[in-house]
Amino acid sequence: MEPSLKSELKLLPVDGVRLATAAAGIKKSSNEDLLLIEIAENAQVAAVFTANRFAAAPVELCRQYLQQARPRYLLINSGNANCGLGAPGLEAARLCCEAVASAAGVDLESVLPFSTGVIAEPLPAQKIVAAVPDLIKNLDSDQWIAGAEAIRTTDTVAKGGPRVIDIDGVPVTITGICKGSGMIRPNMATMLAYIATDAVVAAEILQPLLNRAVDASFNCISVDGDMSTNDACLLIATGKAGNPLLEPAMPEPWHRFEQAVTELCTELAQLIVRDGEGATKFITIQVRGTVSNDDARAVAIAVAHSPLVKTAFFASDANWGRILAAVGYAPIENLDISKVEIFLGDVCIVRNGARADQYEEAAGAAVMAEGDITLTIDLHSGDGRIDFWTCDLSYDYVRINAEYRT
Amino acid sequence: MEPSLKSELKLLPVDGVRLATAAAGIKKSSNEDLLLIEIAENAQVAAVFTANRFAAAPVELCRQYLQQARPRYLLINSGNANCGLGAPGLEAARLCCEAVASAAGVDLESVLPFSTGVIAEPLPAQKIVAAVPDLIKNLDSDQWIAGAEAIRTTDTVAKGGPRVIDIDGVPVTITGICKGSGMIRPNMATMLAYIATDAVVAAEILQPLLNRAVDASFNCISVDGDMSTNDACLLIATGKAGNPLLEPAMPEPWHRFEQAVTELCTELAQLIVRDGEGATKFITIQVRGTVSNDDARAVAIAVAHSPLVKTAFFASDANWGRILAAVGYAPIENLDISKVEIFLGDVCIVRNGARADQYEEAAGAAVMAEGDITLTIDLHSGDGRIDFWTCDLSYDYVRINAEYRT
Repeated sequence: MEPSLKSELKLLPVDGVRLATAAAGIKKSSNEDLLLIEIAENAQVAAVFTANRFAAAPVELCRQYLQQARPRYLLINSGNANCGLGAPGLEAARLCCEAVASAAGVDLESVLPFSTGVIAEPLPAQKIVAAVPDLIKNLDSDQWIAGAEAIRTTDTVAKGGPRVIDIDGVPVTITGICKGSGMIRPNMATMLAYIATDAVVAAEILQPLLNRAVDASFNCISVDGDMSTNDACLLIATGKAGNPLLEPAMPEPWHRFEQAVTELCTELAQLIVRDGEGATKFITIQVRGTVSNDDARAVAIAVAHSPLVKTAFFASDANWGRILAAVGYAPIENLDISKVEIFLGDVCIVRNGARADQYEEAAGAAVMAEGDITLTIDLHSGDGRIDFWTCDLSYDYVRINAEYRT
Repeated sequence: MEPSLKSELKLLPVDGVRLATAAAGIKKSSNEDLLLIEIAENAQVAAVFTANRFAAAPVELCRQYLQQARPRYLLINSGNANCGLGAPGLEAARLCCEAVASAAGVDLESVLPFSTGVIAEPLPAQKIVAAVPDLIKNLDSDQWIAGAEAIRTTDTVAKGGPRVIDIDGVPVTITGICKGSGMIRPNMATMLAYIATDAVVAAEILQPLLNRAVDASFNCISVDGDMSTNDACLLIATGKAGNPLLEPAMPEPWHRFEQAVTELCTELAQLIVRDGEGATKFITIQVRGTVSNDDARAVAIAVAHSPLVKTAFFASDANWGRILAAVGYAPIENLDISKVEIFLGDVCIVRNGARADQYEEAAGAAVMAEGDITLTIDLHSGDGRIDFWTCDLSYDYVRINAEYRT
C-alpha cells in the first residue's frame, strides 16, 4: 500500500550506544513496546521537542532533566503517549526513570523518558518498571533494528538508516531510527527520532547542528497537519570514533558531518511520509521563487495540508485548480497569481497563473499515475525555496484514525 | 447520511426580485445549472467575495462591475467555476453578461456573473448565451426554490431560509438561498449565497451590515479548511416593502433587521455544514474565555481543521486528547494549558488541562453517539468567545473528492 517503502532495514552499531527491547504489555498486541538506549559516559546529546504547548509528561520531564544532567539512558515506550493526565502522568514517567536510574546506578535526571501512542490514557508504569531489570541485562550494541521495531505505533514498517563518512581518515558512523505515521506536521514533525554517532563533536556545535538538520528535514514533512504532543528528536555523539574534534575552527569536515546528519534526517523524514497513514502517494513539493524561504514553507504547507489537493492525488486526478486555489490562500504577502508556474513532474500545467497553453490532461494524468510525484510551484518573485514532502489522503487514513482506539 | 437536514424548503417571494432557471448542459447530469436573478431598479446591493488571491474570473468581473453600476441581474451557473483560465475565462464570463444585458436592455456592468463547480475547465459560454432568452422570458418571483436547486454542485439538498420581521407595523421579508458543501472554510465561507429583502434600507448601512453578518455566520464554518476561489455572498434590498427607512438614526428597528439577516445567514451557514461533503455529524464548537474574539476564532479553526479530531468525531470516539492537542497548536499567544476546560455536551471531559476527575468514558461516548454535538472549550483567560460550526471527516469525504472529476 505504501509508496516504495524499502523492504530491508540495515543499520550499523555505534560505539558507545547499546540498546534493549521488551514487550511490557502496553500495546494491546503482544508486540514489543519498550526500548532502552544506553549512552556512554561523556557523550554529547542535543534534543529538539514538539512546539505544541500541550506537551506530554515525558517531554516536560526531558526538558527539565536536560537542564540538570547529561543523559545516560533513554527509555521509550510505544502504545501510550502519557499525555493529558496532569500530575499522575508526570509521576508515572518519573517512576519509570527511577527504575532505570536505580537498576543502572545513575542519577534520576540522567534517564530521559519518551512515550508515543494513545493520548490521555493512564500509563501503566508498573508494567514498565517490571521490565527494566531485563532491559538493563539485555543491552547490546546490535539491537538498532529491534529498537526501530519496538517504537512503532501505526507505522507499518520499522524505519531507520545508516551513514558512514570519513573524517580525516577516520570512519565515523551515524545511525538513526524513527517512528511516525499520523499526527505528522512540521514544527516539529510529530514523531520520535534517535540518531547516534560515534563522532567526536564539540559540545557547542551539536545543538545548533541538530536544529538546522531538523528544520530542513522533519520540519519539511506533513501527513495530516496535526501536531503531536510527544515529538522528540535526539542526536547523540559518543565521541568513540577518535576522529579529530569537529569544531567551528575546522569548517570543512564539520560541514561534511552536518551534511551527512541532515541527509540521514531527510531520509528518515521521507520514510515517515512514505509510511503516512493510508498513504498511497509520496509527493515532493518544490516551492521556488518566493520572496523568502519562510514564504516558500507557507506555500508548501498550504498545499500539503489541503484535503482537496490530497484527495486529488489519491484519485490520481491532475486537478491543478485545487493546487492553485491552495497557493491562493497561503498566508504570504505580495502573491502575484499572474506569475505562478506549476509543474507536475516535467509537465508544465500552469503558466502565468492559468492553464498552460500546451498542457494536455493526458500528460498530467500520466504523472499522477506514478507513486512518487514531484510538484514544483514557482512564484517567480524572489530566491526563496523549500523542498517539502507529503502524501495523499485516502480512505485508509480515515479508517486508521476512526478505528485507532476501538 | 447528513446530520438532520431539514426535508422541506419553504421560501417567500421578495417584492422586486424575480428568478428563472434552466438546464444549459454545463453539468454532466441533465440537472438545471443556470439561475438568473432580476433585481428591481434602485435596489441597494451589498457583496462580499472570497479572500483567495486566486479569484475566479466571475469574481474579478463582479468586483469591477460593482464599481461601475448598480446590479440589475445576477447570472449564476453551476457545474463549472470558470477559474484558472486567464483572459479566455474573463472573456467567457463577459460574453454571458453581455447576452443578458442585450436581452434585458441594460448596461453590461449591471449584470454580475457567478460560477461554481469544477475549477480550471473552460466555461461553455455559448451554452449559457443560448439559454438567456428563455431565462428572461421565464422570470418569476416565485422561483426561489428552483433557484436554490439550480446552484447546487455536490450539495445533496437545496438550501435556503425565510424570515419575516415587523418594522413599525410593516412586514418585511428576507429570503436567502445558498450552495456549498466542500471547499468550505471561513474567510469567507466558500460558497454562493443570495439574500434578498424588500426592506427600505439606507445605502450606507447595507455593506457594513452584510460584513458583520458574514463574519458571524459564513466566516464561522469549516468543512475541510479549503478556501474556494468563487465565494460570493450578496444582500439585495429592493425597498419595496414601504417600511420607514432603516438608517443609523433609528437604531432599534435597524438593529432588529440586522439581527434577522444575521440569523438567516447563520441558518444558511449551518445548512452548508450539515450538508458538508461526507458529513455524518454536525459539531458546534463554542470557544470561551480567550483573551480576544480573534483568539477564540484561531482555537476554533485549529480544532475544526484537525483531521484527527474530525475522524474521531466520525468514529464517535471521545478522544479528547486530540482536541487538547489541537488547542495546543492553535496560533495564539499566552495559552495556559493548565486552565483549559473542555465539555462534550454537558459532560466535563477536561479540567485544568487534564482528564477531569469525574469523567467516565461512557458519558463521553453517549454524547459522541449523537448526530448534533456541542463541544465547549474554555481557556479561562479572558472574555473572548466564538460559536463555530463544523462536521466530521468520513470515508465519503474522500470518495466525493476523489471522484469529483471522474
